[in-house]
Amino acid sequence: MENKQIIFKGYIDRAPEITDMELRKSKISMREVVRSMEDGEIVVKNLYLSCDPYMRGRMRDFHNSYIPPFQPSSVIEGFGVSKVLHSKNHKFKAGDVVTGFTAWEEYSVIHNTAQLRLIDNSDDDDNSVPIPLSYHLGLLGMPGFTAYAGFYEVCAPKKGESVYVSAASGAVGQLVGQLAKLHGCYVVGSAGTTHKVDLLKNKLGYDHAFNYKTEPHLDASLKRYFPKGIDIYFENVGGPMLDAVLLNMAIHGRIAVCGMVSQYSLSTPHGIHNLNTLVSKRVRMQGFLQSDYLTLFPRFVEDVTAYYRQGKIVYIEDMNEGLESAPAAFVGLFSGENVGKQVVRVAAE
Amino acid sequence: MENKQIIFKGYIDRAPEITDMELRKSKISMREVVRSMEDGEIVVKNLYLSCDPYMRGRMRDFHNSYIPPFQPSSVIEGFGVSKVLHSKNHKFKAGDVVTGFTAWEEYSVIHNTAQLRLIDNSDDDDNSVPIPLSYHLGLLGMPGFTAYAGFYEVCAPKKGESVYVSAASGAVGQLVGQLAKLHGCYVVGSAGTTHKVDLLKNKLGYDHAFNYKTEPHLDASLKRYFPKGIDIYFENVGGPMLDAVLLNMAIHGRIAVCGMVSQYSLSTPHGIHNLNTLVSKRVRMQGFLQSDYLTLFPRFVEDVTAYYRQGKIVYIEDMNEGLESAPAAFVGLFSGENVGKQVVRVAAE
Repeated sequence: MENKQIIFKGYIDRAPEITDMELRKSKISMREVVRSMEDGEIVVKNLYLSCDPYMRGRMRDFHNSYIPPFQPSSVIEGFGVSKVLHSKNHKFKAGDVVTGFTAWEEYSVIHNTAQLRLIDNSDDDDNSVPIPLSYHLGLLGMPGFTAYAGFYEVCAPKKGESVYVSAASGAVGQLVGQLAKLHGCYVVGSAGTTHKVDLLKNKLGYDHAFNYKTEPHLDASLKRYFPKGIDIYFENVGGPMLDAVLLNMAIHGRIAVCGMVSQYSLSTPHGIHNLNTLVSKRVRMQGFLQSDYLTLFPRFVEDVTAYYRQGKIVYIEDMNEGLESAPAAFVGLFSGENVGKQVVRVAAE
Repeated sequence: MENKQIIFKGYIDRAPEITDMELRKSKISMREVVRSMEDGEIVVKNLYLSCDPYMRGRMRDFHNSYIPPFQPSSVIEGFGVSKVLHSKNHKFKAGDVVTGFTAWEEYSVIHNTAQLRLIDNSDDDDNSVPIPLSYHLGLLGMPGFTAYAGFYEVCAPKKGESVYVSAASGAVGQLVGQLAKLHGCYVVGSAGTTHKVDLLKNKLGYDHAFNYKTEPHLDASLKRYFPKGIDIYFENVGGPMLDAVLLNMAIHGRIAVCGMVSQYSLSTPHGIHNLNTLVSKRVRMQGFLQSDYLTLFPRFVEDVTAYYRQGKIVYIEDMNEGLESAPAAFVGLFSGENVGKQVVRVAAE
């Protein structure tokens, strides 16, 4: 049988392009694959794959980060939702649906199952709102948990505080904004198209939203929306936006640095000039990774599942069809072509 | 009688120069001054005045900071140690020595006495090591407390951690380094002359020290002294040093941003390019002002007085003689001409 794969061609030092990846069609014998399985391994059919900005960092020849770079000429690794076909692992059986690290291909042998989670819908009753499987890559996956840990643990929010979210309709931002509203905060978001701004205001419940690409002066825009300053900035973009935010932080404000997607592909990131306001306003700026907060993951799943089922939060996905579309979907993240969480459907459930 | 004063001439947007201040010799009648004293006021003779980098911010026409700008054509305000000559305040009597905000002149009427502290040496016994009065502007004053609050409260140090201090022989830095050594940390400092580096190593107890002006590559220097990364950076300078430090932070490192003295006089501060490491290394960068921690002040005085008397810490002062020398002493801070805490002796005790 055929196993289509997306291959990472080699390290880059600029914005990712579709041609940095290629589709490879290889033949596999499932009987052979099963025969050579080792203890603890499972064989899966990948259903959904996740396109996440952090993956850009793995395309760089830099080995001193929290996650190693991709191997050139090898299949791309990433989060996925997959169906177990064969198992030599007592935690999983054929037919189970799992989520965690898999590869950008149709069928994968997963050796490292330590962080794989079984998607357990057994406690759903007939009346409960069903949760789409792909949401385990977004709302209930790494991006959602990033929002949850970043907002509650890093931002240390208080009711009534003012919150600003950049990339506010993205996989992480859209949940941050909604959690902040549920927490009783005043929430403003920015995004890069009229359509996204409309979603922020009319679907995601932001108090205000603006298109950063059409605002002539970010500093003036922020002063308009935050006349008393920003208590919490959930930083997803970096660059000139961060510089404008620094000028508008309130005393004892907090900046949770989740990522700086506008900077990932610049060989020299934009210089930030206004850090002196960290002192005068006594601002805490904290970088974080969701992986440092995994003890909170069960509580996150419980809380966010409940919010979703109660209709208190929604989640916007951008679903591409077919493994072949994965490179374009990934590349689109860096020009903001995705609307919401970018997922690729590899196979029907 | 004559009352010499140092007058602030007007707002500037570049490095301060001696000619931005001028000496004014005015005549006062002490009898007149005493007659017009209001309730709560005291009249003092200033003994020592403090030159502090934060004062640069008050020379700018910017009214949105934590402290208002100086008034053009008015006498400069600053910390001092002063002897009470006349008092209409029940907390102070003639002959007392006080420290707090006073003015750059020989005699001052102090109206706002709320933050003035009486220097109380009454618990000194005959055997205790005497504490120079001028130390209340440094070791036991605002800079010392900045070091104390910044190190213990903002850096959250653990025994065995690696600590890097820039401007390490300065009014704040020299105490940070010594407190870090007492805490069981590995401590490296940088300064801008061979003499200062020698003091760091041979008088202040730093494990290592280097002259940042003669190091061809700051990044390489830091990698040499911190092969496993920097757990704590006490930031006094900003600019290219901060960028190099960001590349060398350890996972979960902390940066206490006390000031950025290299940047105060640039109309556009140096751009910082390496903030992305805040995420990958999960670094907390926190600006602070000592004034937010004043409840700890009594404990600070007790702790640091005891350390000093036990010979566990020393303090280096740079003492200029005469009010006339104050403008040059202040201007020298920004080119690193001071060796240790810069003080001006206005009158003999």
